[in-house]
Amino acid sequence: MSNEKIPYKIYLSEEELPKQWYNVRADMKKKPAPLLNPGTGMPVTAEELGHVFCDELVKQELDETTPYIDIPEEILGFYKMYRPAPLVRAYCLEKALDTPAKIYYKFEGNNTSGSHKLNSAIAQAYYAKKQGLKGVTTETGAGQWGTALSMACSYFDLDCKVYMVKVSYEQKPFRREVMRTYGASVTPSPSMTTEVGKKILTEFPDTNGSLGCAISEAVEAATSQEGYRYVLGSVLSQVLLHQTVIGLETKTAMDKYDIKPDIIIGCAGGGSNLGGLIAPFMGEKLRGEADYRIIAVEPASCPSLTRGVYAYDFCDTGKVCPLQKMYTLGSGFMPSANHAGGLRYHGMSSILSELYDQGLMEARAVEQTAVFEAAQKFARVEGILPAPESSHAIKAAVDEALKCKETGEDKTILFGLTGTGYFDMYAYAAYNDGKMGDYIPTDEELRRSFDTLPKIGK
Amino acid sequence: MSNEKIPYKIYLSEEELPKQWYNVRADMKKKPAPLLNPGTGMPVTAEELGHVFCDELVKQELDETTPYIDIPEEILGFYKMYRPAPLVRAYCLEKALDTPAKIYYKFEGNNTSGSHKLNSAIAQAYYAKKQGLKGVTTETGAGQWGTALSMACSYFDLDCKVYMVKVSYEQKPFRREVMRTYGASVTPSPSMTTEVGKKILTEFPDTNGSLGCAISEAVEAATSQEGYRYVLGSVLSQVLLHQTVIGLETKTAMDKYDIKPDIIIGCAGGGSNLGGLIAPFMGEKLRGEADYRIIAVEPASCPSLTRGVYAYDFCDTGKVCPLQKMYTLGSGFMPSANHAGGLRYHGMSSILSELYDQGLMEARAVEQTAVFEAAQKFARVEGILPAPESSHAIKAAVDEALKCKETGEDKTILFGLTGTGYFDMYAYAAYNDGKMGDYIPTDEELRRSFDTLPKIGK
Repeated sequence: MSNEKIPYKIYLSEEELPKQWYNVRADMKKKPAPLLNPGTGMPVTAEELGHVFCDELVKQELDETTPYIDIPEEILGFYKMYRPAPLVRAYCLEKALDTPAKIYYKFEGNNTSGSHKLNSAIAQAYYAKKQGLKGVTTETGAGQWGTALSMACSYFDLDCKVYMVKVSYEQKPFRREVMRTYGASVTPSPSMTTEVGKKILTEFPDTNGSLGCAISEAVEAATSQEGYRYVLGSVLSQVLLHQTVIGLETKTAMDKYDIKPDIIIGCAGGGSNLGGLIAPFMGEKLRGEADYRIIAVEPASCPSLTRGVYAYDFCDTGKVCPLQKMYTLGSGFMPSANHAGGLRYHGMSSILSELYDQGLMEARAVEQTAVFEAAQKFARVEGILPAPESSHAIKAAVDEALKCKETGEDKTILFGLTGTGYFDMYAYAAYNDGKMGDYIPTDEELRRSFDTLPKIGK
Repeated sequence: MSNEKIPYKIYLSEEELPKQWYNVRADMKKKPAPLLNPGTGMPVTAEELGHVFCDELVKQELDETTPYIDIPEEILGFYKMYRPAPLVRAYCLEKALDTPAKIYYKFEGNNTSGSHKLNSAIAQAYYAKKQGLKGVTTETGAGQWGTALSMACSYFDLDCKVYMVKVSYEQKPFRREVMRTYGASVTPSPSMTTEVGKKILTEFPDTNGSLGCAISEAVEAATSQEGYRYVLGSVLSQVLLHQTVIGLETKTAMDKYDIKPDIIIGCAGGGSNLGGLIAPFMGEKLRGEADYRIIAVEPASCPSLTRGVYAYDFCDTGKVCPLQKMYTLGSGFMPSANHAGGLRYHGMSSILSELYDQGLMEARAVEQTAVFEAAQKFARVEGILPAPESSHAIKAAVDEALKCKETGEDKTILFGLTGTGYFDMYAYAAYNDGKMGDYIPTDEELRRSFDTLPKIGK
C-alpha cells in the first residue's frame, strides 16, 4: 500500500486487539539469568516469591517457555475502555524536520493515568482480586504508575497503598490528587511508616528518595500485612509481558498497512515500555525472520545501560527483594532530581539487559535540556505535550530523522510515545524559564555506587 | 444492528470525517436576533465587526442562510492530528448504575488542550493567518480555550496574547505553562495593561475576574494594535459553527450503527460545546425529520438559561462588544469562584437562546458538589477523569439513567464529554477534602445584576 494512503492515526478495531500477551523469553536461546534469593544465593522458588507477589504473577515471572499467554476476559474488557492506542504517522514532525524519513509513534497517553502503565496495572490488580486479596502496595516515581494502579484498584475494588518518591511527591502534587480521587493512599518515600524508610532517613535525612528505596518500603508494607501483596510497575518480566500489548497492537497496525520499521526507539527506565514495544519485533529478530535496529534511550543522569555493569544486584535500596542480573549502576546509586522521574532507576529489566548484552539492541544516553528542546518542538507540531520520559525517545527519533536528512535515506522510524506531560509542568516551567540544568554522574560517583553491588552471584 | 455488536469506542475513519461545518441557523425559521451596535442600536455591519474580528469569521458570524460551509484543507489536516474523537458506549457506567438505559458520550478530551475548544481555535487561527495578521488576542476562563488557541497559533506561527480570568490564573498555574510552552503570553485579568482593566480594578480591587471582563481587555488589546484581531472561544455563532464537527461526527457514528438517541445532554457555559453537539440533531428536529429531547446543563451558581432573562445585553463587562440578544444574568453579574471556570459566563449563545426560547430544548441547573460526586463516580468506572465543566453533563446523564432504572425504560442517552480535568486538581482536592461548597445566587442578587442590562434593544 502506498504511503499516501496511510492515515494520520491508525486505530485497530476491537476485534483486532491482541487476545494474548507475548513472552519474548520463549524465543531467547540464552535466557535472562534467574532471580536469586539474597540470603542463599540460590534461584528463588515460586513459593518464596509468593510471599511478595500474587500467585499468578509469580507464575508469569518464572515462565520462560510459553510464548503466548491468554489475556483474561476481565482485562480485555478494561483494555477496551482505553485501547486501542493509536499508531500515529508524524506527518507534521516530518515536515518540520524536512526529513525523508517516515516517522511513526505509538501513543499510549490517551488515558487518565497518562501513560502505558495502565496496561500492567489492570492485569496485576485483576490477579490480586482473583486471589482474594484485600489490597496491594507499590512505589511510584513520576506518579504515572501509582495513578495507573489506583485506577485499576478502584475498578476491582481493591485497597491501594502507594509509596511515592519524595521528589516527585513534591514536584507533582496533582498526581497525588488523581490517586486520591481513585481512592488510593499516598505516602512520600522515604517515610517513617516502615523500618527500611526509617533506616534510610536516619542515614540520609535530606534524600530526594529513589525508586529503589520506595520499592523497599512498599515491599515491607505488603509483607507485614495480612491479605496484601506487592506490585511493581516496571523491571519485572511479568510487567514486560503485559506491556507487549503495545508492541502487538503496533505490529498488527503496521502489518495492515505493509509498513516495516527500520529503527525502533523507546525510552528506558526499568524497561517496561521499551520491552513491550519491541517484543514482537525482537521475536522476529530472535527467530531470524526479520532484522530491526532497536535503540534504548536513557537519561545521561541515570545511565544504567550505557555506563552500568552487567551483574547481579539488588532491585531495591533496602535489599529485601530478590537479586536480579541486570545492567545496573548499583542499588546505592542516588540519581539527581532529574525531572523524568520515571527513568530514575538504577537498574534495567533482566530481559532487556540480556538482549542488550547479546548485542540485539543499542543504547544511548541523552541530556535533559536537549530532551525538553525536542519535547517542545514535538508539542508544537504534533499537538501532544509529551511526558519528559517519552521525550527521551522523541529526542533520539528526531536525531535519527535528521541523520536521514543528511544521507537522503527514507528510513522508517518507530518510537514509543509513552505518555503525556500534563502533570510535569514544573519541569516545563523550568525549561521555559531557562532554569533547567543537565547532570551527568562522574566516573568516581559511579565507582562508588558500583561498590554497593552484592558479592553474591558474581 | 444489535447492541451486542457496538464496540466500547467508535472511531470514524479519516474518510468519514466531516468536510463541511453545518450552520443550524439556515434551518431555523425564526433566526436569532441580530447583533446590535451598542452606540447606534442598529444591527452591526460586516465593516464594523471587521475592526474586531477577521473578515472570514465576520462572514460566518453573519451568515444565516448557507447550511453547509466547507472546512478548508489546512484545517482538515490539523483536525486529523487529533480527530476523530471517539464516541464511547459507557458500558461500565451503565453497569455501575444498574440501568436499562444505553449511555453514549462523545469524548473531546484526547488532545493537549484537553477539550473541544481546539476545534474552533484552529479555524480562527487559520483565518487570521490567511488574512495576513500578526497575531490574535483572547480571553480564557478555565484555560482550556487559551491552551487551545496557543496550540493553534503555534501551528500557524501567529502571536497569541491571552487574558486569563484571575481566579483561574491562580487556580490553574499549570495551564499557564502549557500556554507558554506553545509560545503564548498570558496575563491575569483584570490587569493594568488595558484601560478597561484599570477601570474595573479601581472599582472592584478584590475581584476574582470574570469572562466578561477578560473579553473586554482582549478586545481592547486587539483593536489598539496594528495587525491584531480578537478571537473568542464560545458564545459567537461562528464558534458554534466550527464546533459542529462534534455533532456531525457523532451523528455519522450513530447512523453507522443505527443508534438513535432519545436524550441529548451537554454542559452549557457560552454554549459552544452544546451547540456543536446538538446541531445536526437539532437540524432534523427543525426540519421535522426526527425528534429528540435536548438538555442544556448549567451550574446553579451561574444559571443564565434557568434564571436569566431573554434580552439584549453586553457580551462583555467593559461594554465594548456588540449587543447580543440572549438569555443573560446581566453583564454586571459576578459569578462566585465556581471551579467550573468555563461555565462562569453571564450569557448564552444567541442561537441556543433562541432555540431555548422556542421550546426546542430544555435547561437544568445543577450544584457543584453533586457534579463532583458524579465526576468521581464516572472517573472510577469509565477510567477518564472529567473536567468539572463536562461533569455537569455527566450529572444530568446519570440522573436520566437513574430515572430509566425507576421506570424500566431503555432509553438511549447521549452526552458530550467535553474534556479532561487534569488541570483541575485543586477543585478535585477540595472535593476529596470535603471542603467544596455550593453557591446559588439569591433573587435579590439577580435583580441587581439585571439592572445592568442596557436600555437599548428593549
